[in-house]
Amino acid sequence: MKVVALAGGVGGAKLVDGLAALLNPDELSVIVNTGDDFEYLSLAISPDLDTVCYTLADLANPNTGWGRKEETWHVFDAIQSLGGLDWFRLGDNDLATHLLRTNWLQQGVPLSVITERLCSLWGIEHRVYPMSDDPVRTIVHTASGEALGFQEYFVHQACQPEVAYFEFEGAENARALPQAMETLNACDLVILAPSNPWVSIDPILEVQGYRSVMREKPVMAVSPLIGGKALKGPAAKMYQELGIRPTAFAVAEHYEGLLTAFVFDHVDRGELEKIEACRIIPLVTDILMKDEQDRIRLAEEVLLFGERILNRSH
Amino acid sequence: MKVVALAGGVGGAKLVDGLAALLNPDELSVIVNTGDDFEYLSLAISPDLDTVCYTLADLANPNTGWGRKEETWHVFDAIQSLGGLDWFRLGDNDLATHLLRTNWLQQGVPLSVITERLCSLWGIEHRVYPMSDDPVRTIVHTASGEALGFQEYFVHQACQPEVAYFEFEGAENARALPQAMETLNACDLVILAPSNPWVSIDPILEVQGYRSVMREKPVMAVSPLIGGKALKGPAAKMYQELGIRPTAFAVAEHYEGLLTAFVFDHVDRGELEKIEACRIIPLVTDILMKDEQDRIRLAEEVLLFGERILNRSH
Repeated sequence: MKVVALAGGVGGAKLVDGLAALLNPDELSVIVNTGDDFEYLSLAISPDLDTVCYTLADLANPNTGWGRKEETWHVFDAIQSLGGLDWFRLGDNDLATHLLRTNWLQQGVPLSVITERLCSLWGIEHRVYPMSDDPVRTIVHTASGEALGFQEYFVHQACQPEVAYFEFEGAENARALPQAMETLNACDLVILAPSNPWVSIDPILEVQGYRSVMREKPVMAVSPLIGGKALKGPAAKMYQELGIRPTAFAVAEHYEGLLTAFVFDHVDRGELEKIEACRIIPLVTDILMKDEQDRIRLAEEVLLFGERILNRSH
Repeated sequence: MKVVALAGGVGGAKLVDGLAALLNPDELSVIVNTGDDFEYLSLAISPDLDTVCYTLADLANPNTGWGRKEETWHVFDAIQSLGGLDWFRLGDNDLATHLLRTNWLQQGVPLSVITERLCSLWGIEHRVYPMSDDPVRTIVHTASGEALGFQEYFVHQACQPEVAYFEFEGAENARALPQAMETLNACDLVILAPSNPWVSIDPILEVQGYRSVMREKPVMAVSPLIGGKALKGPAAKMYQELGIRPTAFAVAEHYEGLLTAFVFDHVDRGELEKIEACRIIPLVTDILMKDEQDRIRLAEEVLLFGERILNRSH
C-alpha cells in the first residue's frame, strides 16, 4: 500500500514517525506545510519541515515539540547578550540547519533539494517533500485588524491574539512540488496527519493541484482534537474564535468533500453518528500519542483501517 | 593630540589597543580596512573590523590572531557534520556577531552604524570606522592567472598561491566614510599601524579622499616587518613574489610621498640611512608586541615620537 501523508508540526510528525516505522521508504512519502516558513535573523527557517525531519531522524526534542534534543545554546545566548532578537529560540545544532538551508537557498538550490540533502545527511529514507518550492506564507488576521506572520502569532505572541481569518500569501501562484504530485497521483491512500487543520493542512490544500488529485483518492484524516482540545497548539482556540465548536466532528466537516474516512478518539465517540451521516467511514480508537509505542500502535491501526477502506472501495 | 590610526588585522589591532590605553576616546579614532570582508555561509563577515573590535574589547583570542577567546564551536561542529563549508572557522560567539551584522545589513543599516552599535555593546569608547559603507573587495591575482577573494587566498589557500598583483574591487566608487574623513581632517597625526601594506593599508588608501587628506597631515607608519619577516601573515612573502626585498625600507618606500615618519625595529637599523635619505624621520626601537605591556610601551613611544614631529613641523 502506497501512502502519502500530509503533515504540519508536532502531532503530524509523531504519526508520520509511526508510519515510517511500519512502511518502507517506497511506501510512504510526506508532504509538509511550509506556510510557517519565515525569515528570522536573516535565516530561512522551515519549522514544520524541521519538526518532521528531526522527528524522523530521532533528533527532535521530545519535551518542547520544537528544536533538537541534546541541544546547546551558545550562539543564542551570545545574540541575547548583544540585544538581538530572542523570541524564537535557536539552538546551536538547529542553527547549523538554518545556516546551511539559508546558504543553499541563496545559491539557488530549491527547498525540496535542500530537504532531500538534509534527509540524506540525517539518514531519513522516506521522502519528505515541502509542499512547494515557491514561498507560501500563512498570515493570521486578527479580530483587532492586525495581520501577523504565523510565527509572529504562534511564537512571539504565543497565540494570544483572537483570530479573524487566515490568508495563505503566495498559495495561489505557488506550484505544487512535481515529485509530490507524482507520488500523490500514484498513491493508494492519503492520510491527513493530526495537525492543525487551519494552519498546517489547509496551506497544503490551497496549493493548486493537491486538492484535485486528492478528490480521486481515498483520504483519511486523523483528528488533532481530543475531547474538544488540541494536544498541542492553538487548533481548539482557533475553532472557538472562528465561531465553531472545537469537536472531532468539526474537524471532519472542515475537510468536507475530501474525506473518505476519519480517525478520532474514544472520548469523542458521541460524535460518531454525525460523522457517519456525512458518509465518512469512522474509526474510533485511542489517538493520543504519548510515546514511540503509541505512535506505532496508532500508525498500525490507521494502516489496517486504510486497508479495510481500500478493500471496501475496490 | 588627536590621532587617527589606519589598521587592518592582528598587528594593527595590537598597536591600536596600546594607543587606546593611552588616549581618550576623543583623541583616537581608527579607520579599518574592509577589503577583506566577504560572504561565507551567506553571512557578512568583516575580519579586520572584528579583530580590531575584539582586541579593543579584550574579547580576542590571543593565540590565534582571529576569533574570540573562551570560544565554543557547537554550530561549527554541527555544520561540519552536515558537510557544510568548513575552511573558515566560526566560533559560537563570533557567529553571533556575524548573524547580527548580516541581519542588520539586510535591514539596510550601514556597516558604520552596525560597527558603532557593536562597539557600544562591547564597551568600546574609541571610534572605530569601517573605511567605507560601500563594499570594497580585495582580489588577489595570482601568478597562475587566478583571481581569488582575499579570504579564499588568505585562509582557504593559506597564502600558498604566488601573488601577481592586487585589485581593490569597488574602491574606485566607494565613498570614504564621512565621519572618518571628518575625523581625519581634524586630526594632528595619522598613524599607519603595523598592518600588511599591500592588503590592509592600501585598500584604505585606494578609497577616494583619504590619501589626499593625509598628504596634508603628518603621517607616521610603524613597520609590519622585522628583519625581513612579517610577525604574522604573508606581507614578506608578498614583497618577495612581487620582486621586492621585504625590508623595513621597502615598507617606507611603499608609502612614498605620504610618510613623514617611520618607526622600525633595531634589527633593521642598517636601513636607517636609506630611510633618512627619503626625508623620512626615523624612530628605531623595539616594535615587537608580545603582550599587553609591549603594546602600551610601543604606543607610548609612537605618541612621544609623534609629539616631537609635530613640534618640529610647527
